[in-house]
Amino acid sequence: MAAVSVAVVSDYPANVTITESVTRDGLQSLGAVVPTAAKSGLIDSLAGAGLRTFDAVSFVSPKWVPQMADGAEVIAGVETKGLRLMGLVPNMEGLENAVAAGVTDIGVLTAASDTFCERNLNASVDESMHRIRRILFDGPDDIRVRAYISTATHCPYEGPQEPDWVADLALTLAEWGVQEIFLGDTIGMATPAEVNALLDEVLTQVPAENIGVHFHDTYGQAIANTVVALQRGIDKMDSSAGGLGGCPFAPGASGNVATEDLIWLLDGLGIGHGVDVGTVAEVADEFCTKHELAYRSRAGRAILAARRLEEEST
Amino acid sequence: MAAVSVAVVSDYPANVTITESVTRDGLQSLGAVVPTAAKSGLIDSLAGAGLRTFDAVSFVSPKWVPQMADGAEVIAGVETKGLRLMGLVPNMEGLENAVAAGVTDIGVLTAASDTFCERNLNASVDESMHRIRRILFDGPDDIRVRAYISTATHCPYEGPQEPDWVADLALTLAEWGVQEIFLGDTIGMATPAEVNALLDEVLTQVPAENIGVHFHDTYGQAIANTVVALQRGIDKMDSSAGGLGGCPFAPGASGNVATEDLIWLLDGLGIGHGVDVGTVAEVADEFCTKHELAYRSRAGRAILAARRLEEEST
Repeated sequence: MAAVSVAVVSDYPANVTITESVTRDGLQSLGAVVPTAAKSGLIDSLAGAGLRTFDAVSFVSPKWVPQMADGAEVIAGVETKGLRLMGLVPNMEGLENAVAAGVTDIGVLTAASDTFCERNLNASVDESMHRIRRILFDGPDDIRVRAYISTATHCPYEGPQEPDWVADLALTLAEWGVQEIFLGDTIGMATPAEVNALLDEVLTQVPAENIGVHFHDTYGQAIANTVVALQRGIDKMDSSAGGLGGCPFAPGASGNVATEDLIWLLDGLGIGHGVDVGTVAEVADEFCTKHELAYRSRAGRAILAARRLEEEST
Repeated sequence: MAAVSVAVVSDYPANVTITESVTRDGLQSLGAVVPTAAKSGLIDSLAGAGLRTFDAVSFVSPKWVPQMADGAEVIAGVETKGLRLMGLVPNMEGLENAVAAGVTDIGVLTAASDTFCERNLNASVDESMHRIRRILFDGPDDIRVRAYISTATHCPYEGPQEPDWVADLALTLAEWGVQEIFLGDTIGMATPAEVNALLDEVLTQVPAENIGVHFHDTYGQAIANTVVALQRGIDKMDSSAGGLGGCPFAPGASGNVATEDLIWLLDGLGIGHGVDVGTVAEVADEFCTKHELAYRSRAGRAILAARRLEEEST
């Protein structure tokens, strides 16, 4: 591939909505087992930092993901009122459990790649799309549905994915009335080139206001990819406090982009979000220490280290 | 600051020159003591990955930086021919020693902030500029001189710096004939907003072909900042293998941007550089293991982890 000139007209959104994903995607991809009350408490503490939207829990079968079996109890344990608490739902049984648990949003899943879809959802892409269709039909009207397209740039089994195919999936979901369609770089291999190529296609089919991004920092590109998405007007992004998360295809590698690193970027760009970065860092660091997890946010490490240095010198 | 619309015309360079900084800036800011032969050997091993330009050693007084006292011996120990090996030179005595040691390039230092300059170079910005002037006068004609402007966006003591003041310094250096002027985000606080604001001013005074960037990843923004610099046509950047480096103002935080993360970005964007990312990761990981240093490249961790997983499955 040769380097090419591209004209980008940047129009950063004035505000973005951060979906805090640590209690669901973060802990799930780490494979970490954390007590139920600690998950509810983490949501409350992060709400204290200003976060309002959470990828909170999952209602997949406990056979698949045993450490996520306590979704209903986690939701019940959250004390803060007025939060958006999303439950991930793979099928009709999951939908019933999520509704019974009182989530405000449900998350549904498909993927660009059939192989990834089969291994993670036990369904082809077509089957997963039809499941989403059924959930949309049967779900209560007052519950918002967010759809994730995983492996939207790269699949760990099939390699790079075709942007126009992802755009077709997004268009179908939009036609079905899904208001929030999230594009996932599930294994964090994308650079701004692939993100721009993907958005070139998707944004011709679906308005930016209906698109969100779910980036992983596995190869250190997540903040750069976020800049590209912001330049295209995307205003919805997932992140995980403390950078908690991992990548099953590269054990020990970084996972979800850290909420603290994302906020540092947004603050620099003057984009509103309503979250205090220092509080997120403190809460996540304390959580990591208590549950023996590695704290991974770069901005958070720097903020906390600079604070300690200042305390020592006064 | 309100979010604003900005028009950016991207014109990525076709090729980039990476200056590998691990043996000088990386190890110096970590405060790591590594045997002389290991530093020479690391340069040779990284040259084997395709790297050709090195921020290799420093000729500052051993009183200031004892672990960098072996600059001449490190240069003498490098076996690979045809490399650009830069020695950092703070004054006339350092210049003599660097020339005697046979470096191909010398690096000279100033800063945007007087306080930082005083504490690091024991000179005001004016004094450091005049020292550079003397070095330019007295240095041999066949040695290339690169000038660094540290704290070009933020100073740990004085806070944000004025872009037009940095542009004035860059213009003066360019008028003196310095071909390579590197802008340093010494403490890694900048986001693409500050980098764009800085380049807006600097590039009105000095052509992009004479500007390089030295980014630190302390707050996780270095790769995003690199994208912005590339979009402005900057084709010279420093990085450190394994992400080795640190930040004295946030002990334990990340330091120099990792060479592996930078290469992953450049490969994605189709920008040439001549370096094999997997070899850099292997070399840096082995070096870290041997010298008990934390390996910090995200891309490198992912590449090495994915390789181990593949080896285990075959």
